[in-house]
Amino acid sequence: MKKFINHVDDFLAESLAGFAAAHADLVVLNNEPVFVRRKVLKPGKVALVSGGGSGHEPLHSGFVGHGMLDAACPGQIFTSPTPDQMMAAAMAVDTGPGVLFIVKNYSGDVMNFEMASEMSEVQNAIVLINDDVAVEDSSYTTGRRGVAGTVIVEKLVGSMAESGASLEQCKAFGDRINKCTASMGVAFTSCVVPAAGTRTFKIGDDEIEVGVGIHGEPGRRRAKMAPADAIVAELLSAIVDDLKPQPDAELLVLVNGLGGTPLGELYLLFNSTRAWLGQRGLNIGRAQVGALTTSLEMAGASITLSVLDDEMKTHWDSAVHAPSLRWGM
Amino acid sequence: MKKFINHVDDFLAESLAGFAAAHADLVVLNNEPVFVRRKVLKPGKVALVSGGGSGHEPLHSGFVGHGMLDAACPGQIFTSPTPDQMMAAAMAVDTGPGVLFIVKNYSGDVMNFEMASEMSEVQNAIVLINDDVAVEDSSYTTGRRGVAGTVIVEKLVGSMAESGASLEQCKAFGDRINKCTASMGVAFTSCVVPAAGTRTFKIGDDEIEVGVGIHGEPGRRRAKMAPADAIVAELLSAIVDDLKPQPDAELLVLVNGLGGTPLGELYLLFNSTRAWLGQRGLNIGRAQVGALTTSLEMAGASITLSVLDDEMKTHWDSAVHAPSLRWGM
Repeated sequence: MKKFINHVDDFLAESLAGFAAAHADLVVLNNEPVFVRRKVLKPGKVALVSGGGSGHEPLHSGFVGHGMLDAACPGQIFTSPTPDQMMAAAMAVDTGPGVLFIVKNYSGDVMNFEMASEMSEVQNAIVLINDDVAVEDSSYTTGRRGVAGTVIVEKLVGSMAESGASLEQCKAFGDRINKCTASMGVAFTSCVVPAAGTRTFKIGDDEIEVGVGIHGEPGRRRAKMAPADAIVAELLSAIVDDLKPQPDAELLVLVNGLGGTPLGELYLLFNSTRAWLGQRGLNIGRAQVGALTTSLEMAGASITLSVLDDEMKTHWDSAVHAPSLRWGM
Repeated sequence: MKKFINHVDDFLAESLAGFAAAHADLVVLNNEPVFVRRKVLKPGKVALVSGGGSGHEPLHSGFVGHGMLDAACPGQIFTSPTPDQMMAAAMAVDTGPGVLFIVKNYSGDVMNFEMASEMSEVQNAIVLINDDVAVEDSSYTTGRRGVAGTVIVEKLVGSMAESGASLEQCKAFGDRINKCTASMGVAFTSCVVPAAGTRTFKIGDDEIEVGVGIHGEPGRRRAKMAPADAIVAELLSAIVDDLKPQPDAELLVLVNGLGGTPLGELYLLFNSTRAWLGQRGLNIGRAQVGALTTSLEMAGASITLSVLDDEMKTHWDSAVHAPSLRWGM
């Protein structure tokens, strides 16, 4: 295993310390329990708290900041954070109107966030993200997994919260975005979890895992390597079958790198995506290309589509200032 | 070879088409000859034109925009662009006060940019970047290589040009930044150039290449895998030996991913970097962590330091709006 690590047990602490130091203008790192919070809170604003296993950076810590999250709770690599992290984070960032927990659908995360939700003295609600159309049920999930669509929910609901919406409104908006958002990914290689030291799964030099999960969970099928256009067609067919957008629908497209795939290939995927959508009369209203929800150094990518409405467009375009997503300020 | 590609020969064109479509608010792609230019030029501003082999994305196309480059000329992967690309780009973005070519020190790039500089009817000057302290002379270079320090030059001189400085002032500023900027990298894996289809170099499962070039050129030594702190100490020792910063110097630190290294590891490297610098009384004035100058999917990273002065800090902090670097607007 070749990674920039001193001791495996210290990896997360040292990485978070570096993150907090690099972005000291925006975030503060809390230890015992561990969470990252906005340096300056906005009194009276519904607070957004997310979290999950580490290894998906910049998700979630990289999205703590103005117009997105108020706090993120990082677990160990690919391991849920604990309820005490979530409760302490919620307590730290609530200024009165309550906390919305944004939770990716993995059994451990769901169990722990639900426990935190029940035990917390802070008024709260949960939005559950399950945008991955690849498979029903998976290694760590009952029902569909939550993947890169989470970034879209965090951006849009973050903007709505910033504009002064209530907890109820934010929760309803989050649920609505989740329903009109779908993703699917493909892996060329496995990642290596530092504590394991070996590849999560084996895959041949000419094989790809279509519908892979962001922890290396199996997808729909193991296939032979194929041209980008064919891979994109398979991913988009599954996504569009699920979303069933109207013929005049306007879409938000997120081409997401899983960690080990060069940016130039992600732009090529976006090019294939817009060709495929264009042939079907589907319009791209907004686009984002980059590694926003990763699986350590896994080579591969995912595509996410959201069916946009005017409210979503407004909240997508609004200013955001987080370590890994910034515009308008 | 597993990459998101349709046909190797079409990779660059399709990737650039996707890039231009994703950032149509900012850039325009010119074909025959190929270059990326700002959509809206600022009349009377010195124009900055860079370029080089592709495969280092987001360098350079991702830095075309307000406060940075006016045009970028992408060559084939790891291959210099041609003089006609550079001359056409210069002609397209010059609004009168001339063009500054920002060139990384590789023999092919230098030869072609010098030819473009001589043949161009546009008033112009060249800033040559040679920030890599790893080795004197290399596979494709006489003298030191130009690597991630290029991003710093592009940001700072871009800001100065935006503020209305003359071609002479921009050239002098670029040369000055280059002199106070030094970098060194390390690779864990090779990348695979699509047209070759095989790894550029072989490296053992327990080996690292210390001082690697951004095309996989040999560095100072092939070493055994080591803790992050030890790797950082070796890179920073070489950089600081070269820069010889004053004891009260304020530094710009860029921890740059080479493509295949997760963001969490880059933040850990930044943490090691600030500890090492802190022990020597060196202050970090500005910091940037991310994959800005890559070598396709190579796992590894580089560290760049610039010795800051007030003028450099002002131009670092100024607004920038390019596809891959954005703040203040």
